[in-house]
Order: sequence, then C-alpha cells, then structure tokens
Amino acid sequence: MTRPEAGRRDRLRAAAAVAGLDAVLVTDLLNVRYLTGFTGSNGALLLGTDGGSAGSGDLFGTDGRYTTQAGTQVPDVELLVDRATMPALARAARTGGATRLGFESHVVTVDELRGLERLLGEDGAAVELVSIRRAVEALRAVKDDGEIEALRRACAVADAALAELAAEGALRPGRTELQVGRELDARMLALGAEAPSFETIVAAGANSAIPHHRPDSTELTEGDFLKLDFGATVDGYHSDMTRTLVLGHAADWQREVYELVAAAQAAGRAALAVGAEVTAVDAAARDVIVAAGHGEHFTHGLGHGVGLEIHEAPGISALGAGTLAAGMAVTVEPGVYLPGHGGVRIEDTLIVTDDEPELLTLTSKELLVL
Amino acid sequence: MTRPEAGRRDRLRAAAAVAGLDAVLVTDLLNVRYLTGFTGSNGALLLGTDGGSAGSGDLFGTDGRYTTQAGTQVPDVELLVDRATMPALARAARTGGATRLGFESHVVTVDELRGLERLLGEDGAAVELVSIRRAVEALRAVKDDGEIEALRRACAVADAALAELAAEGALRPGRTELQVGRELDARMLALGAEAPSFETIVAAGANSAIPHHRPDSTELTEGDFLKLDFGATVDGYHSDMTRTLVLGHAADWQREVYELVAAAQAAGRAALAVGAEVTAVDAAARDVIVAAGHGEHFTHGLGHGVGLEIHEAPGISALGAGTLAAGMAVTVEPGVYLPGHGGVRIEDTLIVTDDEPELLTLTSKELLVL
Repeated sequence: MTRPEAGRRDRLRAAAAVAGLDAVLVTDLLNVRYLTGFTGSNGALLLGTDGGSAGSGDLFGTDGRYTTQAGTQVPDVELLVDRATMPALARAARTGGATRLGFESHVVTVDELRGLERLLGEDGAAVELVSIRRAVEALRAVKDDGEIEALRRACAVADAALAELAAEGALRPGRTELQVGRELDARMLALGAEAPSFETIVAAGANSAIPHHRPDSTELTEGDFLKLDFGATVDGYHSDMTRTLVLGHAADWQREVYELVAAAQAAGRAALAVGAEVTAVDAAARDVIVAAGHGEHFTHGLGHGVGLEIHEAPGISALGAGTLAAGMAVTVEPGVYLPGHGGVRIEDTLIVTDDEPELLTLTSKELLVL
Repeated sequence: MTRPEAGRRDRLRAAAAVAGLDAVLVTDLLNVRYLTGFTGSNGALLLGTDGGSAGSGDLFGTDGRYTTQAGTQVPDVELLVDRATMPALARAARTGGATRLGFESHVVTVDELRGLERLLGEDGAAVELVSIRRAVEALRAVKDDGEIEALRRACAVADAALAELAAEGALRPGRTELQVGRELDARMLALGAEAPSFETIVAAGANSAIPHHRPDSTELTEGDFLKLDFGATVDGYHSDMTRTLVLGHAADWQREVYELVAAAQAAGRAALAVGAEVTAVDAAARDVIVAAGHGEHFTHGLGHGVGLEIHEAPGISALGAGTLAAGMAVTVEPGVYLPGHGGVRIEDTLIVTDDEPELLTLTSKELLVL
C-alpha cells in the first residue's frame, strides 16, 4: 500500500518541476512531517524532480539520534544520517547535479542561507537557490481522509473533556481559571491527546472580554460569563473550539450578546462552501455583528485553517485572499468583546465539503447556563 | 524597584554600543521575553544604544491582541502596536536616525530580511543591517536570582511528580509507557507546571537503549530497566531530569551498567566549576565510561544549558567551546546504551557556582528497585 506521504511528495514534485527546479530542500519540520511521516525534532527532505515516480532521487536527512525512528517512520525514502542535516542534503543535491535548488525562504534563516550559499559555491559549482515560498503549506491546506479522521478524533477528545468537566461540576463559582484550565488539559491527556493544541484559554467575568486571556487566579463567579477556548492534539492534528457559558442566571445583556454571536457564527458556517472567497466568509459573519452595532467589538478575523499547526492556511479574514476548497479544515469563531464587562466567542472546527460543511466540534452551542 | 529585564537590556545595550550599532532589533520571542517580560506569541524589541540608561529609545512592538498584556508585562518600555510588528519597529529605527541596525540573523528568515532591506532602502535611506548573532542567548546563559528560583521550582515539581507516581505504585509491570508518561505529565500540571518541559520520555526494557524513545504501548516488565526523562516548566523555565530504575530484581549486568553511569555522572558533576572548559567537563564523565570499555555506547554530549529553552547555551560536549561561569544552569546526563538490551541515563539540572554546584533535581540517584 502506498503511504499518503508518497502522494504528497509527488504533488510537490510536480509543482517543483513546473517551476523549473531540479530539487527542493524542505526544512520546515512540520512540512517534513507532512511529506515523510517523521515526527522527530530534526529532519529535512531533499526532493528530486527527475523521473517523477515516488521516491525518485529523494533523500531524508536526520541525525544519529533518529536513525531507528527514521527507518520505521520513513521506510520509503532513502536515509542520510548527518548531524549537519541541511548542509548534507544540499551537498547531495549538488553532487546529484542540481543547478536550481528550491528552498523555503520563509523558514530558512539568514545564517542558514549564507551557509548554503558558501557550501554550494565551493569548487566553482553554480547552484542557484530559489524560493518555493509556502508551496508545502498550500498543499497542506487541503486534508486527505487520514488527516480528517485525525482531526475528528482531536475534536472528539476536546468535546469529551469539556462534557466530563461540566458533568462533574468542575465549572462552578469559587474555582479559579487556572484550576479549570489545568483540569481541562489533564482530562484531554487522559482521553488520549498528545498535548493541548495551544495554551488553554479560560476567561471568567470581565476577563472574557480579552480575546486571548491567559488563565490566572481569577475565580469563577455566579452570573458571570465563562469563556473556554481549547483543543486537543491527536496524531499531530489540532482541534480548536470555543464555548462561552454563564454561571447561574444569564442576564438579558448576556443573552443578547450570546444570541448575536451565535447568529454570526451560524452565518459564517453557512458561508463555508467550495469556491467561496475567504473575505466573503468573514463578511457573512461580520455583517451580522456590524448590523447590530457591535462591529468595533469584533476585533479579529473570523477563522483559520487547522491541521499540523493550530493556525495554518487558509486565513479567513477581511484581509485574506483566496477561495475555499473541499477538504480544507477551518475554524469559524466570531466574538463580541465588551471591555470591562465580558465577551462571547463561539468557535467550531469544520471541514469544507462539496455539500454542507462537516462539523467536527460537536459540543452544543445553546447558551449553557451552569 | 527596577525590574531584572531593565538590567538585561542595559547589558545588551552595552554590547551593541561596542559593536558600533545605533539600535538592535530583537525578534526571537524568547529573547524578547527575557529582555521585556512579555509572554505573548507576537512581540519584538527595538533597543536603542543612545544614552545607555534603561529604556532610552527602546520600543516594544506587538499587535492589537496584546495591547493590555503588554501594558501589564512591559510597563517600562514604550509600546508600539502594529500588526506588522517587525517592519514597524524597523521603520521606527530608520525614523530615529539609525544607520547601523543589529538583527538576529539566526532567527530572521530570508523572506523577513528581504522585507526589511526593501523597507529600509525606501527613499534612498541607507540603514545597514548587521548580524548580532546569538548575543542575547549568550547573556541568557548566566541566570540571575529570579531565574534560578524559577528553575528550583521547576525541578521541585518534577521531583514531586515522580515521587507521587512511585509512591502510588504507578510504575509497575503491566502498565504501558504511554500511561506512565501521561500520568507523569498530568501530575506535573497538577503540581503547578505550565507544561511538561518537552515530550516526556518513558522507555521500558530494550527501549531504554534508545536515547530518545517516544513512549508507546510497550508494557513495563519485571526485571526490566525503566528510563524516565522529563521535566516541568514553571514561569517559563524548564527543568530536566532522567532517572533509570529497575522493576523487581536487578540483574548483575544492570547493576554494573548503572554503577558505571552513576560514577560518570558524579565525575561530570564534580567537574562543574567556574572557568572549566565545557570539553573538559564532558571528558571528565566520558573518560569513566571509555575506561570501562563502553565509550561507543555513550553516543551523545554530556549536557546542555537549560532556562527559557530546554536546550540552550552552554552546550557541554566534546565539540563544545567556551568555559563555565557562575550562574549557568546546566544538565549532566551521561548514558550507556546497549542496543537490544537496555540503557541507563542519569541526569540532573545544576547551577554552576563559585563553590560546589547547586543540585536542583533532588530525586535520589541510588538504583531504585521498585
């Protein structure tokens, strides 16, 4: 059976051949993971464009710590073990006769490029280094079946962790944001997450008006908003979900803000369609909030892609560019933040499909009053 | 009271003035945290060298998400809020009349440098971009009292987590590496860690011969080695500790390997002195292992600095350079790995002092037979 990584390499190979490159040096660690399956902390891929069949001329580089792991995780690419991984692969490209070598200019540092230029200029050899920009990230934006399954499981872990916490009464007045955040994290780990997707946000009361509040010793208080933004990582894939609830009795202003954000979020989800401009998706949700006079209180973009990174392509915002494609995994997360009072954000992770988007975060979006 | 960050900025300012720089653009996020106290995910510092008094001409940049947080965490540096943080600070440097601007060439990407060059060349202005290399990392290698206190607490959390796990009988045959790893992580979080310092290593039986084994479903087995390499992060500072134990009865070969590594580790710790060459410290431990005929089974360096990163300056290895200074926080972690059989690593985190090194990881290093 061909591994999905081989198909991904072939797609990059085709793009590189079109750009007139003999080979591509992939050094972003997540891009390397995507193209090879390698999960260690040092690895790079030299992808050859000659031939075009999977594995042709490809070379996976890592250091001696990962020889065994590379053999298991990357069985279908020739292995090169060298402590100075990137230079060793560049040297291999030169030896292999490459004259135009692609590299990731958004990842390679100034020092690394200078090192490569020195090395590739040795003996009067002329290898031109050409940026491939975010070519691999562009491929990564569209998920395959295995990736979508990992995202489903990552979202299910987050759903279950929150359900358990709520059922046990852990979200009650008197507890601190930090306690709740740590329990949510521990619960996700116990349910099989490798790690939280990012630093879990627990924001109580006025803190809920801060979009990215870091949990502190603030206590949950009767009648206050409680905003939870969190996710689980499973097989390297990240889930992302925000729910806002009220402790005790919800005041009218809280219900109003909540219903507004919920309506905007529903509009954003409904706008997720193949071919939709990301700016139009953002506008679909934002228009609802602007029409209610709260435009200035929605201070961030509507959403972002999720996958091997918690934030990846496509960005869904007024400043974004491009259109949605089937298989993209994105968040829809409008918010209204009233400084000093409180804020509401509602966020789901979804898959864009030719039909309705598939909702992966299944926790109810009814205003939960605990 | 002056914050420690102000003193750190002044030390960098002095170094920059010596290098003939008008200003320095610090963009590595941990270096920014070290120099300002900012813990968000986007921030950069423009440090002016004119005047030399703390704060003189300095500018802290971040985006709108962090306006409030920056006000709290960085009260003593002027704030600039701009989504395109790095270009905005570079523009401020140019406006301020800088002609030689330092930048971190090991962090700034090729794309970012091209952007800065374009921007700084506008209107025929001539601002020279000069690499400061790892100047901030060099400052970070020597810890101040507050940093050492954070490291003490990070090590104490790891000590306590392991003690609790052992006391509860969680390290018994039949349990899997993954279960133990997750419990260790959850325990550290419950004890106040922000996160594990790195992906916890739990390696049972023959897996203990793999220096960086990733926990899997391997079961702990009577008579086998169990190697645990883990740490806690507290206030951003990382602890790092490895202990190897035996489940049930230790065989003679296991005792022999263990005693050998323990002797090497003690020799390495004893060599930690102000002014010692890092290569000599590595050799002090390595010689013990080589003399016992196991040189080829000790396949990595002896240790590394720890702090805001789990691996930072100074590196302690045969390939290292430089000497130790008082206040450096380092690990000493020799290992002997017998492929297919098992391996032992013993690792402590310590502070180099003018006297004996201060041991921060206090868990016993007697061979623990559970």
